[in-house]
Amino acid sequence: MCESNVYIEKDGKEELYLENVDIMKPEGGKIYMKNLFGEQKIFEGAIKEISLIKHKIVLTK
Amino acid sequence: MCESNVYIEKDGKEELYLENVDIMKPEGGKIYMKNLFGEQKIFEGAIKEISLIKHKIVLTK
Repeated sequence: MCESNVYIEKDGKEELYLENVDIMKPEGGKIYMKNLFGEQKIFEGAIKEISLIKHKIVLTK
Repeated sequence: MCESNVYIEKDGKEELYLENVDIMKPEGGKIYMKNLFGEQKIFEGAIKEISLIKHKIVLTK
């Protein structure tokens, strides 16, 4: 499967925020995301970097 | 592989912009992207929606 793990960058470190994310929608300074298991989260911040081959998305405040 | 195709939404239609994208970095109203073959593009706009299971990323002006 091609879902990604989402990490939050904080103080130069990356912290796991949500695993197996399928859907992401940035809107108005917030990012809505939903994973394969239907778990949903909204993060206030922005996408810093997406690396699909590494299955990794990094968000930042 | 888990790369995605990137589409631009324009007038309600989606137009293919770059295939097999691995890396994306949004920065200052622009989105830098690179695909598996080393092809690079910079789009002025924002990410509208990411759907990893569908291998699809939609950008918008």
